[in-house]
Amino acid sequence: MVAFGPVLHIVGLLMSIMAVAMLLPAGVDLAVGNPDWEVFTGASALSLFIGVSLMLTTNSPSVSTLSLRQAFLLTTLSWFTIATVAALPFAFSQLDMTVADAFFESMSGVTTTGSTVIVGLDHAPPGILLWRALLQWLGGIGIIVMALAVLPMLSVGGMQLFQTEAFDTPDKVVPRAAQLAGGISGIYLALTATWAAGLWAAGLPGFDAIAHAMTTIATGGYSTKDGSVGHFESVVVDWIVVCGMIVGSLPFVYYLRMMRGSFRPIFRDSQVKWFFAIVTLVVGSTTLWNWHELDYALHDAFRYAAFNIISVMTGTGYATTDYGIWGGFPVTLVICLMFVGGCAGSTTCGIKIFRIQVLYATAQVQIERLLRPHGVFIPYYNRKPIPESVSESVMGFFFLYMLCFGILAALLAAIGLDFITAVSGAATAISNVGPGLGPIIGPAGNFDSLPDSAKWLLSFGMLLGRLELFTVLVMLSPSFWRR
Amino acid sequence: MVAFGPVLHIVGLLMSIMAVAMLLPAGVDLAVGNPDWEVFTGASALSLFIGVSLMLTTNSPSVSTLSLRQAFLLTTLSWFTIATVAALPFAFSQLDMTVADAFFESMSGVTTTGSTVIVGLDHAPPGILLWRALLQWLGGIGIIVMALAVLPMLSVGGMQLFQTEAFDTPDKVVPRAAQLAGGISGIYLALTATWAAGLWAAGLPGFDAIAHAMTTIATGGYSTKDGSVGHFESVVVDWIVVCGMIVGSLPFVYYLRMMRGSFRPIFRDSQVKWFFAIVTLVVGSTTLWNWHELDYALHDAFRYAAFNIISVMTGTGYATTDYGIWGGFPVTLVICLMFVGGCAGSTTCGIKIFRIQVLYATAQVQIERLLRPHGVFIPYYNRKPIPESVSESVMGFFFLYMLCFGILAALLAAIGLDFITAVSGAATAISNVGPGLGPIIGPAGNFDSLPDSAKWLLSFGMLLGRLELFTVLVMLSPSFWRR
Repeated sequence: MVAFGPVLHIVGLLMSIMAVAMLLPAGVDLAVGNPDWEVFTGASALSLFIGVSLMLTTNSPSVSTLSLRQAFLLTTLSWFTIATVAALPFAFSQLDMTVADAFFESMSGVTTTGSTVIVGLDHAPPGILLWRALLQWLGGIGIIVMALAVLPMLSVGGMQLFQTEAFDTPDKVVPRAAQLAGGISGIYLALTATWAAGLWAAGLPGFDAIAHAMTTIATGGYSTKDGSVGHFESVVVDWIVVCGMIVGSLPFVYYLRMMRGSFRPIFRDSQVKWFFAIVTLVVGSTTLWNWHELDYALHDAFRYAAFNIISVMTGTGYATTDYGIWGGFPVTLVICLMFVGGCAGSTTCGIKIFRIQVLYATAQVQIERLLRPHGVFIPYYNRKPIPESVSESVMGFFFLYMLCFGILAALLAAIGLDFITAVSGAATAISNVGPGLGPIIGPAGNFDSLPDSAKWLLSFGMLLGRLELFTVLVMLSPSFWRR
Repeated sequence: MVAFGPVLHIVGLLMSIMAVAMLLPAGVDLAVGNPDWEVFTGASALSLFIGVSLMLTTNSPSVSTLSLRQAFLLTTLSWFTIATVAALPFAFSQLDMTVADAFFESMSGVTTTGSTVIVGLDHAPPGILLWRALLQWLGGIGIIVMALAVLPMLSVGGMQLFQTEAFDTPDKVVPRAAQLAGGISGIYLALTATWAAGLWAAGLPGFDAIAHAMTTIATGGYSTKDGSVGHFESVVVDWIVVCGMIVGSLPFVYYLRMMRGSFRPIFRDSQVKWFFAIVTLVVGSTTLWNWHELDYALHDAFRYAAFNIISVMTGTGYATTDYGIWGGFPVTLVICLMFVGGCAGSTTCGIKIFRIQVLYATAQVQIERLLRPHGVFIPYYNRKPIPESVSESVMGFFFLYMLCFGILAALLAAIGLDFITAVSGAATAISNVGPGLGPIIGPAGNFDSLPDSAKWLLSFGMLLGRLELFTVLVMLSPSFWRR
């Protein structure tokens, strides 16, 4: 059996942090005189009470006591608990959301998915809007720290490629994660502040500038407007956000190195090169399509293609227009891109570029081997040979990704969703993108009208995708719970 | 460089066989007084002339001279040449098809896909109808022999799992294949005759009974009627065809063993067990859906679900109703099933059950490894440990399958096809199923209206899927052509 004590201690700590975070929207609502401030304060008090109780009744994990199982349990339980706690304000605010809606919105927030069930954002109270942005922003930093410190140590889906020496034993993960979180958080905060200033300078009201900066860097996609970023109808805003989404999709660890003066490494990383190559190819061809087929002026074709394609690929989920009606080619690309995602160690989700590279290199080696069965061929990633365990891990991940996607799509369809809603809904949830395709959950639609059972399934899909499948699936294995 | 001589010799032999086969429809057309008999005779003469010329100008491969490269080249070139030769009657017959249409129809025939561009089968001359059935029937036996003798030797996509001792060196492939082809062909012929008799007894005219028996056992799907098997509106016919499609999807090597009196092995093969488990699960849930959601009587819901779901999964491609309008759940299942396929060593295409099993077993072992990183876990297939090279090969296959599917879908969409036509068209081509989804190429539609470029792309997709990707892709590798 897994000893729950130290795990619950950290979960308690995270709940307490969420309780403190809730005071921000409480303050904002209080300032504008919105009665929701009481909801946030109440939810904060409740979270703090439970969080502190957990911490007081359990032992703090000493540096060397966290086992592998505890680390898996901690990761899954943390995200689940945070989503649950964060749902409280949604459930009790003026919006009066159902339990399924509140949990969906909250899970979509912390996983930086960006799918929403709220209709009427334009007139929603500022507290709720800030809370949504804050959830994605906190989720974003949580993901980066998890991807840098936790997942490589757990060897999840080939993440062991990014294992650094200091991280190779479970017992060092907590202190090292805390140390790393400090450095990365500073950068994350600075980037958010920069983009907020930029958006404000481009004409956005201060509140909207801050909220959008938070959800841009987190590649989250929650907007303060029903029309998403398209609401502002500003070329400058569009391009600022495009740059922000790209910044949020690159490995954050390079920003730390840049702070120390080394600017070269980020451009030498093959992950980053592939990311830009794919972006160029797809944005380029979509621009040509929109220009040629849809009577856009060339510069508009480029602007809308760049914004919406990058938004989907990075899993942000903003929209500046209903790209669902662009036609077969862009829509097919959008579905494919949902699976691709950004770089490891960023705020994006999806299969991720490095896995595509590992899969490609491994498949290429297979072909060489067919011709010379006794030759020795080794796949390379980033100029280093890929260990066999990493190849297998990535390939297992890819299969499970497709399997989970297929099962989720079939279950959604069994509930009664139409084909395009079920398939794109499963893809957008598991890849944490945001909008799906089709008239219901497409960029011009909303998840509100889905049945509750679909919302629960999609919430589970988001969690599964966010934690890179294995972290959740491992707990479904009977041997996890055996001694 | 690859020495073409012995390869061309065998290709010449195959062309001569096709030339002889063309005399059958020529005879039928002559008997009914249709002028197309001249087309078949002319095409036969041309094929025979080229075939014999090739055989006379090249050296016959002696038992020990066929190299690995030559085997790859031979496999791809054979299928391509047969499709080209077989297209001649389509191009010059009364149907007056374009080059793209004729090649598409021919490739769809020999790969046992079953997608058609011919509108008005009900009134088509018998020669053409017999030629279509004959192509699928010959394609079917070619596939079985290839899957038993050639692909395991080439280690394509994990097929080395089915390597038997007699087959492990390239130099023995030709004589052993010929020997095996004899045994399997006898069984294949007997099965076809049995099903033809059954269909005839069920009330089908003799010609239709024979044609449908040929395309059923080959899991091909070409019908002599525009309304496919649904035309006959007979419960008995439906169930006879269902049994035939299942027989065509099981490993044919077991039928050889049954002939020798051992009936047990087929039921002990985990591939066969999984096949029936998937069929039961999917047909069962679709039956419930159709009964509950579509006002079918329970026995009709079962009949239509069984026929059409098994037709898609086995890649046959018959239809007894337009299952594209059954709703989101069946349609989502249909798309997923297109990828699954039947057992290795049968006439079906797709990823195939044994690869799904290998992927599943490997992924399961990955999860165990996460919990005990230093433990030794070995994936099993059919009660035997899976060699690492097989796991890797299957995983490479799966990735390339998805990659080729995605690229093909994107290219089809770029041509101007809508989303559902592009995606289901790519899936149906690469998995050799037959109909796609949506109003254009769905079970009630036809591939006729697609642009020529789409027909060429789909034809290439069929070949790629039929030859299990690697056989074609290996020839795109520069090192194939280097010394």
